[in-house]
Amino acid sequence: MKTDIEIAQEATMIPIKEVAASYGIAEDDLELYGKYKAKLSDELWEQVKDRPDGKLVLVTAINPTPAGEGKTTTTVGLGQAFGKMGKKAMIALREPSLGPCFGIKGGAAGGGYAQVVPMEDLNLHFTGDFHAITSANNLLSALLDNHIHQGNALGIDTRQILWKRCLDMNDRALRNIVVGLGSKAEGFVREDHFVITVASEIMAILCLADDMNDLKERLGRIIVAYNYSGEPVTAAQLNAVGAMAALLKDALKPNLIQTLEHTGAIVHGGPFANIAHGCNSVRATKTALKLADVVVTEAGFGADLGAEKFLDIKCRKASLKPDAIVLVATVRALKYNGGVPKDQLKDENLEALKKGIVNLEKHIENMQKYGVPVVVTLNSFVTDTENEYQFVKNFCEEKGCEFALSQVWEKGGEGGIQLAEKVLETLENKTSHFAPIYPDDMSLEDKISTVAREIYGADGVTYAPSALKSIRKFEEMGFGSLPVCMAKTQYSLSDDQTKLGRPQGFEINVRDAYVSAGAGFVVVLTGAIMTMPGLPKKPAADSIDVNNEGVITGLF
Amino acid sequence: MKTDIEIAQEATMIPIKEVAASYGIAEDDLELYGKYKAKLSDELWEQVKDRPDGKLVLVTAINPTPAGEGKTTTTVGLGQAFGKMGKKAMIALREPSLGPCFGIKGGAAGGGYAQVVPMEDLNLHFTGDFHAITSANNLLSALLDNHIHQGNALGIDTRQILWKRCLDMNDRALRNIVVGLGSKAEGFVREDHFVITVASEIMAILCLADDMNDLKERLGRIIVAYNYSGEPVTAAQLNAVGAMAALLKDALKPNLIQTLEHTGAIVHGGPFANIAHGCNSVRATKTALKLADVVVTEAGFGADLGAEKFLDIKCRKASLKPDAIVLVATVRALKYNGGVPKDQLKDENLEALKKGIVNLEKHIENMQKYGVPVVVTLNSFVTDTENEYQFVKNFCEEKGCEFALSQVWEKGGEGGIQLAEKVLETLENKTSHFAPIYPDDMSLEDKISTVAREIYGADGVTYAPSALKSIRKFEEMGFGSLPVCMAKTQYSLSDDQTKLGRPQGFEINVRDAYVSAGAGFVVVLTGAIMTMPGLPKKPAADSIDVNNEGVITGLF
Repeated sequence: MKTDIEIAQEATMIPIKEVAASYGIAEDDLELYGKYKAKLSDELWEQVKDRPDGKLVLVTAINPTPAGEGKTTTTVGLGQAFGKMGKKAMIALREPSLGPCFGIKGGAAGGGYAQVVPMEDLNLHFTGDFHAITSANNLLSALLDNHIHQGNALGIDTRQILWKRCLDMNDRALRNIVVGLGSKAEGFVREDHFVITVASEIMAILCLADDMNDLKERLGRIIVAYNYSGEPVTAAQLNAVGAMAALLKDALKPNLIQTLEHTGAIVHGGPFANIAHGCNSVRATKTALKLADVVVTEAGFGADLGAEKFLDIKCRKASLKPDAIVLVATVRALKYNGGVPKDQLKDENLEALKKGIVNLEKHIENMQKYGVPVVVTLNSFVTDTENEYQFVKNFCEEKGCEFALSQVWEKGGEGGIQLAEKVLETLENKTSHFAPIYPDDMSLEDKISTVAREIYGADGVTYAPSALKSIRKFEEMGFGSLPVCMAKTQYSLSDDQTKLGRPQGFEINVRDAYVSAGAGFVVVLTGAIMTMPGLPKKPAADSIDVNNEGVITGLF
Repeated sequence: MKTDIEIAQEATMIPIKEVAASYGIAEDDLELYGKYKAKLSDELWEQVKDRPDGKLVLVTAINPTPAGEGKTTTTVGLGQAFGKMGKKAMIALREPSLGPCFGIKGGAAGGGYAQVVPMEDLNLHFTGDFHAITSANNLLSALLDNHIHQGNALGIDTRQILWKRCLDMNDRALRNIVVGLGSKAEGFVREDHFVITVASEIMAILCLADDMNDLKERLGRIIVAYNYSGEPVTAAQLNAVGAMAALLKDALKPNLIQTLEHTGAIVHGGPFANIAHGCNSVRATKTALKLADVVVTEAGFGADLGAEKFLDIKCRKASLKPDAIVLVATVRALKYNGGVPKDQLKDENLEALKKGIVNLEKHIENMQKYGVPVVVTLNSFVTDTENEYQFVKNFCEEKGCEFALSQVWEKGGEGGIQLAEKVLETLENKTSHFAPIYPDDMSLEDKISTVAREIYGADGVTYAPSALKSIRKFEEMGFGSLPVCMAKTQYSLSDDQTKLGRPQGFEINVRDAYVSAGAGFVVVLTGAIMTMPGLPKKPAADSIDVNNEGVITGLF
């Protein structure tokens, strides 16, 4: 079997202006980055914004194994399948981060014969969006420390600085640092932290902003610190907004590339799925809905995190209405949820499958609570057996749920036609009655409780005293109507990653909370959430190379 | 008078493919970044590399005032003037850094009617080259700290780590930091430093590399630390080379943009002019020489730093032969060198001019030592008087030196025709007998002494004991044949920025030295050299903005 990068490099891409033309986009509305990547102009949005929307399909998944279960691959493959069937479809994805690319996870462009290309560009600098976010984030930090150094007119309390520097890199040594050492000319000494760029609030802001004006308002609302009186200090008070916005001017525009089968793919933004909302940009999704009849998008991690935030944050805030949800399962992940160790997932094990399938059951029930029709798909692996496949199929049919096997990794769009047909049937025959799981005017504590009970299946929520104090402070500060953004392990429906399957009789423990006032949500931390990953013993970077002809190897 | 950004935004650019076509570059050899920026493909170099070279003209300057004396403006204007005269000319510049753009200096695209465009793109992210360098630099840091964390098989001494992290930002708080704080999972605690990206050795490497293979060899030679036995540890030993090179794949390709009058401008790389060599990339200069009959390029700071390194490092290593040198003076800087305070430079002062003109005299003599014909130009300011202008003109003629007034800031190419004519006469009538000021096989101490005596006019060199010890160690390690890269204040020919004019009876004090084994030079530090600038009380960022139509204001 060929590697992902070999398949991607052997692919024949068509010029992106031809892909664009197939969606009625004129060359003048493209800002080309080479022959195969383009940004979509602001003028294009003005032209299409009053058109009716296409159908919106969200791809999400059960709780995964550490290797991931192929949400992106399924999303890409489903888009390709629609293309094969002559439907005007488009996919909308997140941009990958450089950090995992050199760490353990590798690239994030789909896999096998269901990939977006050019794969190397996408996984390296792409069109520079993440670098722009890094620059804007760190300009705000530099202006903040400079303000303090130059007299601290705003009275910023250096013990209560919330804003962190960022880099698009897995670099554990930067998690906790002390800055400003040296002499008087080097500023004030204080503790600081770097997060990975995808965890920057600016990433979340970029993904939720309607346009440049909205972006600037959101940037201005970022709370960077508290002053000595305990009042919030914002980016607007530091006069940082205009310069940050100038840095983000091009990053705000969605990027167009193509799948291996030339389906259009708008790939834009990539916020963390724990401390942020884990979906591509609102602008990208909305543009795709104006250009295609069916738009397939995805959200990070399992449905308890990614889909919940897609529905309760992104759709709520952007007035989007999903028409169907595709829930990706794998036989591997179901067995993993049934307690099989990682190294034995290849062996047939119907007992473990029976034990683990309750995880799928809970996610089906959860998605139905939002009023959106669900199609389950099994992302097939060569190690799956016919018995295992039949078991999952029967289970779904007994639950009254549409089911389709997906073989897009092996066969590309052709392998996704069964799934695409089920999705089309669903779009034609079933109506979505989408509503978020909680209303805006519920208290923050009740919102947290609703998600914990309804989605995670918890008995209740406990709070660290400081967390509860923070949440009540946010209500007083006027942030009570914001949605909550839950940061939780992706490996379990609970906040304990060892509790697999469908855990019962547990409580969610809220350790801390903070407000992302620019993004517009209150982040609720359960357990220890890593915002700056580390590199493994043998990093992926070890194997990456490029030759004198510019051909890259070792990206996966 | 309009601001630079207003002039730039009012300019009518022509599509970059048309600019390229006027130099015989096919569209297939361009990698477009929007309509007005492109990278030149590796294939283009293969097509043109055996052509004869055009003439190479270096623009350098006397010791400047803190505002700079318009080297880039003169370079751009001279290129525009050649265009007006129907000559096939091209300019080759450095890319600006984001740090100064938000700090005190503002942009770096020339000024007035002698600018390269698109000015905002160039001053913000441009084609992402600097971001790629930042990523590659910080990947090496992450791999280094990860290596130590994962067992430190190479025995790296954390007290002797040389490699620093970098950001393209003016951020004094990052000059001296402590990383790795927290728990065991956060790695080992150690002191670290951030430099601005243009001060990264990777920037110097990118600018000196012939091609991808050469780039990789140079990256591999970077000395990141010493081990517990005192032996150097290189980037190659950390297996970092392939992944860094993959990040730099596109950054290695020169960028083509245009002047306000559509002259082609290859703008590529931008190493610091103190701890690095301060010139644009070898690849850019060589490509321009194959495409045009006359290539105008520039080097950072005054001729004692920029031109010396251009000639002794870049030309030596890349086998380039400059045909003429344009030495830029301003009446302001000559008066400043004559002791006039910054706020009185606008007033006519012939006494101060007489006193300060010895600075110009020394630079003329210096450039003549390299065997290259010199043309002096006065970059005119509206505050200059006829008396002052005549004085400088007479002085140059008495020194047997070509002279021309330059009015390119006010008049564009038209204002540079007098200068262009003098340069053309020089190219036609005078032969360059270029040779570096010292041979490769001289000892490092003798090389330092030669530059100090011949170029700076010093009586000799004193060394801090540790500096001398380092220099002798580098000889033992086999680096004795490298050129020296002097880091010195740009405001004086001496290492004391208060000694203006043509100082005499001084010694150069070498404080420290280190080897940039990848770039291929030994950095010699005199005085305190800042590799991470800070922001001023009112940063330029304060005034920068962008509106909902994407129009940027406040960049200058």
